[in-house]
Amino acid sequence: MWNSSKFGKRLGIEHPIVQAPMILQKPLVALASAVSNAGGLGSLGCAEMSVDELGQRIAEMKHLTVKPFNLNFFLHSQPTFDPDLDKQARALVAPFYQALGLDLPDNASGTEAETFNTGKLDLLIEQVPAMVSFHFGCPNPTDVDKLKGAGIVVAATATTVKEAIVLERAGVDVVVAQGWEAGGHRGSFVSDYEDVGIGTLALVPQVSDAVDCLVVASGGIADGRGIVACRALGADGVWMGTAFLTCTETPISDVHHNALMVAADEDTHLSRAFSGRPCRARRTRYSTQLAQGRPEFPAFPLMYNYSSPIKRHGIAEEDLEHQFLLYGQAAALNKERSAEQLIKALVKEVQDLVTTASI
Amino acid sequence: MWNSSKFGKRLGIEHPIVQAPMILQKPLVALASAVSNAGGLGSLGCAEMSVDELGQRIAEMKHLTVKPFNLNFFLHSQPTFDPDLDKQARALVAPFYQALGLDLPDNASGTEAETFNTGKLDLLIEQVPAMVSFHFGCPNPTDVDKLKGAGIVVAATATTVKEAIVLERAGVDVVVAQGWEAGGHRGSFVSDYEDVGIGTLALVPQVSDAVDCLVVASGGIADGRGIVACRALGADGVWMGTAFLTCTETPISDVHHNALMVAADEDTHLSRAFSGRPCRARRTRYSTQLAQGRPEFPAFPLMYNYSSPIKRHGIAEEDLEHQFLLYGQAAALNKERSAEQLIKALVKEVQDLVTTASI
Repeated sequence: MWNSSKFGKRLGIEHPIVQAPMILQKPLVALASAVSNAGGLGSLGCAEMSVDELGQRIAEMKHLTVKPFNLNFFLHSQPTFDPDLDKQARALVAPFYQALGLDLPDNASGTEAETFNTGKLDLLIEQVPAMVSFHFGCPNPTDVDKLKGAGIVVAATATTVKEAIVLERAGVDVVVAQGWEAGGHRGSFVSDYEDVGIGTLALVPQVSDAVDCLVVASGGIADGRGIVACRALGADGVWMGTAFLTCTETPISDVHHNALMVAADEDTHLSRAFSGRPCRARRTRYSTQLAQGRPEFPAFPLMYNYSSPIKRHGIAEEDLEHQFLLYGQAAALNKERSAEQLIKALVKEVQDLVTTASI
Repeated sequence: MWNSSKFGKRLGIEHPIVQAPMILQKPLVALASAVSNAGGLGSLGCAEMSVDELGQRIAEMKHLTVKPFNLNFFLHSQPTFDPDLDKQARALVAPFYQALGLDLPDNASGTEAETFNTGKLDLLIEQVPAMVSFHFGCPNPTDVDKLKGAGIVVAATATTVKEAIVLERAGVDVVVAQGWEAGGHRGSFVSDYEDVGIGTLALVPQVSDAVDCLVVASGGIADGRGIVACRALGADGVWMGTAFLTCTETPISDVHHNALMVAADEDTHLSRAFSGRPCRARRTRYSTQLAQGRPEFPAFPLMYNYSSPIKRHGIAEEDLEHQFLLYGQAAALNKERSAEQLIKALVKEVQDLVTTASI
């Protein structure tokens, strides 16, 4: 049966469904623990956490669940400040600052998002979460060995076959094959052609053929149909983000929630205007305007220096056009329910599909 | 079983697999008839045919097969010549003409591709092919009624939910849900955000939910895994183009064939630089250069006036960088074999997948 996937067995979880790590305005501990308690694999997006906060969140998770969970980190390189790109970005965002009555920062040289470091590695080895996953890069093989040595399953995102092969060579246990449909940041690190983005249906079989490690599919998976499809394509498990955004445990803003409740397939596009890296989010006045002519932006995460004040204003004013509402191309299939109800519904949909002969 | 799909029954074909209509340098009669004889639905791309040639190709098809086949037409509007866009396009292509020693046409006001017309409609009603499919638009409801009245199944391409609904309202029997992964021209006609392109995995379930007519999935389907996936997503059949490009019956150039034999997932991008409409093809020096800064181009099919001389030169010189090699994101899974061997392999892969309990 589909539940006896290699990924599920390896993680010791009942259903091979990962709730994708997401960074919202508040920590996702309630959601992630509910997913793990319901037999999936809950995740926390830890990229922006200090070592202290990371320790605190792990303690909260362990208090709320005895089941396996996943912690996700970013592996971007530290950006170089480029005065020309900075100047260009200032000119592009200036009309928004003026219209909203905000003070334009002097420049975008400060960094908001720290990258993975030894302090976090040491804490993980001490705390032994079931899985640690990486985005935006290939983890250092020495770090991979240390994590695996501690009994932690190591996962990382690939958006192309080439990236999947790089990750396997670095020793990861699980490649998360992220298709074009996925909401949020593209994990690309070798291949960064944002327009080339490989759709999930084309990516998963090619990645499955290319690597021997476990493959988890992500991007556009919204219900049991998507799960069965990804299993047929060769995935050992699925990684679903958007579907969990409307769970009752998810600390999402009303504006974001309401946008999801009326979402359509065409809502989103890839934009670098939030962070400097391509990210799938709802099209807004801000992201559409800044996509004109395809300018280059300050490197991730420098662009946050210019975009975050606009976002904070949008959140305070409940103004959708100046927020960053991250979601994928299948958001229109979202429903509001608890994480446990969602997991149960997914499992039932899969069972119904695989037991009918109609496929 | 999967073979008893509503689409297969409706068309009277053994396997619900459509060989997508494609336009190569020579007619695809040998390929299309072989596909139909093997139990699939062979197609001819008739967009560029005169009424006379159309009649001739139908006669050839009927000589080679008694099985159902499909004829495909374009439904673009007649373009308006825009002197400013023309001037801009001339400037963009000029360096290529200079480098290749070609004479730049005076302008791009001539049209190469005719659109659907009464002469073709009358011939179809007289000849009654099993299916007629449309790309680039919504067929006139009166034409749809006439075709259906003659016993012809009518299909048309949608790239978004909105387009699928428009097509259903016009009376089509079959919506071809074309995902982002698909090689060749995107069929978009209401929604033309080329960057928003919905991946097949996200598009098919949303279209299936939105319309009551039959849904055939296209884009990135390369083998039995893709077929089972699309059936799970809600499709009644599949539409596969790239997979048939390396069939022994396909009249493809050596350069195109060899590119497919070493294809990778990242090879392609969408380019308007060939025809004026977004089209997925192998990235070349020409298409990459003309994508810089995302310029607008003369409307379809006017841009062919500037791109065709470059293509003809590329073909004559067997120079890949100046040809238009159309294929999708799963081309790396292509194998060289006969159409019958391909159909048999697909059927076996599907049967093997659905009879194992591992999904």
